[in-house]
Amino acid sequence: MHNDLVAALDIGGTKIAGALVDDGGRILLRAQRPTPAREDGETVMRAVEAVLAELAGSPLWPGVGSVGIGSAGPVDASAGTVSPVNVPGWRGYPLVERVRAAVGGLPVALVGDGVAMTAAEHWQGAARGHANALCMVVSTGVGGGLVLGGKLHTGPTGNAGHIGHISVDLDGDACPCGARGCVERIASGPNIARRALAGGWTPGPDGDASAAAVAASAHAGHPVAVASFERAAQALAAGIAATATLVEIEIAVIGGGVAGAGEVLFAPLRRALADYATLSFVRGLVVAPALTGTDAGLLGAAAAAPRPVGSRSAADRAAALGG
Amino acid sequence: MHNDLVAALDIGGTKIAGALVDDGGRILLRAQRPTPAREDGETVMRAVEAVLAELAGSPLWPGVGSVGIGSAGPVDASAGTVSPVNVPGWRGYPLVERVRAAVGGLPVALVGDGVAMTAAEHWQGAARGHANALCMVVSTGVGGGLVLGGKLHTGPTGNAGHIGHISVDLDGDACPCGARGCVERIASGPNIARRALAGGWTPGPDGDASAAAVAASAHAGHPVAVASFERAAQALAAGIAATATLVEIEIAVIGGGVAGAGEVLFAPLRRALADYATLSFVRGLVVAPALTGTDAGLLGAAAAAPRPVGSRSAADRAAALGG
Repeated sequence: MHNDLVAALDIGGTKIAGALVDDGGRILLRAQRPTPAREDGETVMRAVEAVLAELAGSPLWPGVGSVGIGSAGPVDASAGTVSPVNVPGWRGYPLVERVRAAVGGLPVALVGDGVAMTAAEHWQGAARGHANALCMVVSTGVGGGLVLGGKLHTGPTGNAGHIGHISVDLDGDACPCGARGCVERIASGPNIARRALAGGWTPGPDGDASAAAVAASAHAGHPVAVASFERAAQALAAGIAATATLVEIEIAVIGGGVAGAGEVLFAPLRRALADYATLSFVRGLVVAPALTGTDAGLLGAAAAAPRPVGSRSAADRAAALGG
Repeated sequence: MHNDLVAALDIGGTKIAGALVDDGGRILLRAQRPTPAREDGETVMRAVEAVLAELAGSPLWPGVGSVGIGSAGPVDASAGTVSPVNVPGWRGYPLVERVRAAVGGLPVALVGDGVAMTAAEHWQGAARGHANALCMVVSTGVGGGLVLGGKLHTGPTGNAGHIGHISVDLDGDACPCGARGCVERIASGPNIARRALAGGWTPGPDGDASAAAVAASAHAGHPVAVASFERAAQALAAGIAATATLVEIEIAVIGGGVAGAGEVLFAPLRRALADYATLSFVRGLVVAPALTGTDAGLLGAAAAAPRPVGSRSAADRAAALGG
């Protein structure tokens, strides 16, 4: 057996998912644990080790040549450390070193979750075949990643593509990150719901005041619900247009729960994009829904995994497709 | 004599400058013509050809191996065409093909002027040695370019880095580009002057109502003049922070006439940057004034020029320094 499999880890504030993935992007085995997010760092690490141990118990394990990790951010890929906002026990936590020790010294790569989702969409999703793309997750937060010149652009610390925290409203509402008017502060699910409630929208009998409930009202034509999605779409459009104007991208791929609202989001987004993406070289920009769904984190971690010399990483293959 | 020289062209709305540049970045010969910007496209081209003919008359010319062009934008590097806003006779004008014909078929490369300035600053200026940088010109307009992963990031059409036309105020004033609240709409010299006048600032006895005159008043402590520069600095900071958050850069280099205002601009810019560049991986971002001055366009065009196979372009050498 050749070492043509990778072990992928997708680490979030709710769950730690692992998988063995082949070079065609097929998930051959899965393992998962809840993230003990309120516990100390070593307890969180034991959950990661339990996932790895379950994968390592498989007869497929000898075929694993490397490990790719996609983690909630911030991460520092150059230092191999993570500091996920929702996992307070991990601050500057040496995750790469600890995972490498747990897998007997195999090579390990780390990227942020926005970059991982982008790697997945570029490899198997809506960004496939595109040399220059922005991929985004619009959900509880707003994250993203970039493909530039056919390759995943991670930046030195693995955090590039953080479109949720660019300011599109420099005098706007304070964002928890410390800045004002960030895309996330306007376009995330909780902010869509907050704005609808503030505007007089009320939940139905089930009391559901989520962005999904606002989306259902918007589909039914409720003007406050429609307006809240339009405002989110405007902020997303300004951020996407800014990205295209700065680095030249041909497609923006949007996934995450809020993207599940469908045309309630995408129709005003396309209209607003025409307002903000005005220069000749960005006017052709296309917006598309993401395709890789809940496996995006695992597939992206697999795509980011290092490969033995002489082999080609999944990301390289994706790059070749894209270039 | 080896072909280790390049011919550089810097094409703007006011002048067409040319030079022979060696691989150390020394300008060995210059030629220049006014841009007949109001004339038809062929008349403008004749001015370019006159500059090239003057360079070609030099005994150094046989050492020229290629031509690099930096042009006012928009450009389309993939098509080899230019459509400078201030040269209406050129719309989709096939500048690369025409220059190649004028120089007997030598290889020709085209980049936008913001990208050219960036190449110059990366090669010989304040961005030297930095693998990830944003370089900007703040003047009548606001332009820029990016160095990513040690290399000039031009984008497929040569327009990447257009920071002047990202929106940092999505409900803000209409910009001539069609969008709202663009960095240029707030931070360019004419907008600094406009805002000061609207706030009650009045020019001195000489009637000079330029941004430079506003800067002089700001140095003397005039509160409206100070406030106009502070607002420009805020918009620049939001744009620079957005760029750093999207692609990871370690330095932002600022040139152009407005940067000549010095601390009246740079002091509030550094303060505002702390407000908008909040995530861990962008907090170390440094701002510095540009160093290459009026030769930036020529040096950048030279850096962007293609080199013979087996040789290395100036940009590659700059990349090696940066990486």
